[in-house]
Amino acid sequence: MAITIRKLDSADADFRAQLSALLAFEASEDAAIEQAAAQILADVKARGDAAVLDYTNQFDRLQQRPQGGATSVAQLEIGQPELQAALAGLAPERRLALQTAADRVRLYHERQKLECGSAGFSYTEPDGTVLGQKVTPLDRVGIYVPGGKAAYPSSVLMNAIPAKVAGVQEIIMVVPTPDGVRNELVLAAAAIAGVDRVFTIGGAQAVGALAYGTATVPPVDKIVGPGNAYVACAKRRVFGTVGIDMIAGPSEILVICDGSTDPDWIAMDLFSQAEHDELAQSILLCPDAAYLARVEASINRLIEQMPRRDVIRTSLTNRGALVLVRDMDQACEIANLIAPEHLEISTDNPQQWADKIRHAGAMFLGRFSSEALGDYCAGPNHVLPTSRTARFSSPLGVYDFQKRSSMIHVSQAGAQTLGRVAAELAYGEGLQAHARSAELRLK
Amino acid sequence: MAITIRKLDSADADFRAQLSALLAFEASEDAAIEQAAAQILADVKARGDAAVLDYTNQFDRLQQRPQGGATSVAQLEIGQPELQAALAGLAPERRLALQTAADRVRLYHERQKLECGSAGFSYTEPDGTVLGQKVTPLDRVGIYVPGGKAAYPSSVLMNAIPAKVAGVQEIIMVVPTPDGVRNELVLAAAAIAGVDRVFTIGGAQAVGALAYGTATVPPVDKIVGPGNAYVACAKRRVFGTVGIDMIAGPSEILVICDGSTDPDWIAMDLFSQAEHDELAQSILLCPDAAYLARVEASINRLIEQMPRRDVIRTSLTNRGALVLVRDMDQACEIANLIAPEHLEISTDNPQQWADKIRHAGAMFLGRFSSEALGDYCAGPNHVLPTSRTARFSSPLGVYDFQKRSSMIHVSQAGAQTLGRVAAELAYGEGLQAHARSAELRLK
Repeated sequence: MAITIRKLDSADADFRAQLSALLAFEASEDAAIEQAAAQILADVKARGDAAVLDYTNQFDRLQQRPQGGATSVAQLEIGQPELQAALAGLAPERRLALQTAADRVRLYHERQKLECGSAGFSYTEPDGTVLGQKVTPLDRVGIYVPGGKAAYPSSVLMNAIPAKVAGVQEIIMVVPTPDGVRNELVLAAAAIAGVDRVFTIGGAQAVGALAYGTATVPPVDKIVGPGNAYVACAKRRVFGTVGIDMIAGPSEILVICDGSTDPDWIAMDLFSQAEHDELAQSILLCPDAAYLARVEASINRLIEQMPRRDVIRTSLTNRGALVLVRDMDQACEIANLIAPEHLEISTDNPQQWADKIRHAGAMFLGRFSSEALGDYCAGPNHVLPTSRTARFSSPLGVYDFQKRSSMIHVSQAGAQTLGRVAAELAYGEGLQAHARSAELRLK
Repeated sequence: MAITIRKLDSADADFRAQLSALLAFEASEDAAIEQAAAQILADVKARGDAAVLDYTNQFDRLQQRPQGGATSVAQLEIGQPELQAALAGLAPERRLALQTAADRVRLYHERQKLECGSAGFSYTEPDGTVLGQKVTPLDRVGIYVPGGKAAYPSSVLMNAIPAKVAGVQEIIMVVPTPDGVRNELVLAAAAIAGVDRVFTIGGAQAVGALAYGTATVPPVDKIVGPGNAYVACAKRRVFGTVGIDMIAGPSEILVICDGSTDPDWIAMDLFSQAEHDELAQSILLCPDAAYLARVEASINRLIEQMPRRDVIRTSLTNRGALVLVRDMDQACEIANLIAPEHLEISTDNPQQWADKIRHAGAMFLGRFSSEALGDYCAGPNHVLPTSRTARFSSPLGVYDFQKRSSMIHVSQAGAQTLGRVAAELAYGEGLQAHARSAELRLK
């Protein structure tokens, strides 16, 4: 069965409206989920471990196991020996691949730490006043890892390693184990990434435990990592008590191609996004109509080989598009409108086009940079801004696990000049105690 | 009437519980405000300018003016000539103070831009693969400025200048003018800060106009600046469509003093926080009980001189505290627990204590560094994390108006090694299109 993929032409009068309709995505707000998450959070806040235990036994069906439900949250912790055993139990080639990916991700983020101002700064003014900024890591971070099918060891690496590189003292991972089933590859990734403690809890109850702390689960300062609708909702609600990362939307890829890349490669790149999720979005921009037809032919030839073809077909049919553009310059303009999570620039001399891109989570330059390489092991983070949020937000990074403090050391001489300015403005704002506080330091 | 200020002693058995009770603050969630904000946002999204006009005429009582209500949103825009006129109309000493403050804030943030990794980075691996990070400014930013009494020109500088320094192309300011009354000092600050366009609209309707755009108000990529409960609620709701800054809680100061600073100075510093708001919090830590008594005496002597004494009295009575600590080391430990917005370290050699502080929005070192200097003109930003969020967040800065894109340019040789690693892990995660996408690039 052929895939009917949407075709757009940027020369059409209503192209912009068609593009907007293609991109439109509203995260559904479900009042029942909202209410359930709020109730679970309140219960965890009030009852601590007992509430976490009840919800975990219930939602993960632990009572139905031969050994019955858990009787303490301590039983739900997985110790370091078990993590190391999971790592030791991997097939050698898989273990090597995971270790290689971790090493490369660590290397990139160490470079990022060096380059993103982690040392802070300070400077001294002529009157002796010192101004600056101190940068410190967060004390303790929680990483949420989904259970079941969507459990991705690569996500454990991508969330934990930047935190470690930033200098976070303790990383607490939570991962639900529905029916008590553990994912060995996820546990092995936790071992490699240096996660400090792992609890097999999930859902809003795990978010609550991390945010408020319980007798067994220590409270964290920030919670990162993807989850289902209950988890997303709980994270939004605890924001302020702890920090959170972005709430991710469906994953997207935008490919700009000049028409000279093997069309099978491009088709497979579009599949690799589409296979994630029926809501995922794959779009190709090209100035060559004949090439778009060749990619479409590749799509229809290759789809039947794909184990996840049903998901791919639904995603490409409902949310995919092949877009004919006037030229590469226009392709870059459209890319800036879309502000894609992943942008492949599959051309010769891709840097010339990358220089024109203002908004993208990650750019993959040249014909060999398939997004899949970045998803696993190139080094940069695969947690990226979705749904046009690359207009204002960034890949997960070392900076997400650091915070800054301003440093102000005013000299006696500085207090004379600054004090007069501050007092003048404070009186202007009607804040007399501010003014007097400055004036008391005047000689 | 003497102020009865709470006294705590860190040697008390239940000190930690007393401290927790002192710090406890829950932002009230008002379902009626939630619903009103949501309804206004939906209406602005649907009806654009017409909705903005209706709400502005209604909530800011513009129909009651002699000239009646506004008939278009364009009428609510204040042009550059009017901003320049507001600046020209200031008393010379006030204009000079505002200009001096703006210059110092700009200088600090330019230094911050240099030091926070704004240049991005890239590095080339032995096989020719290039990895890096590109840093770009946001395109367009909205600044919300409250109207009426809480209109602070210093906040205009603190929000707009970092955006300008970051390279934001267009800054749109919104400021409500209840009863049509404009605050000339706020408009003058907008002129000095280089704000591009100003609309006299406020409330949830202004947040909606900035987030969604209307025929007259262009959509922005991020909204910053403080507002009332409706504004805070609207900002939370549009988060995702646009970026937002932190939702600020009541302002706080923590003073650590060794007992040798003039007690009047410390009393006035505590007042300067307390005068903001009845919910503001001022706490003093000192190892010298006699000194705490002297500060208390100063408080009771100085309070009657303060025009805002009623606010100060309520704030200090309900939320203030004088805390006796064992020694300066313990004071630093307690400061890390509190993670204060503002921390004064009023001692000799304050750097030795600052080195022990992990969590604070801004640190004011030495006896001359009163918080008021930082509020107006020292240079660092006065928009700081409140309510213990300094554990995971930072002062507003240039970095809040920039975002990063990962750059991945894999060479043909790199695609061979990375492709095998990626394929191995992708098969492990059951994502075969990812694996095939990597494998197609293998020779």
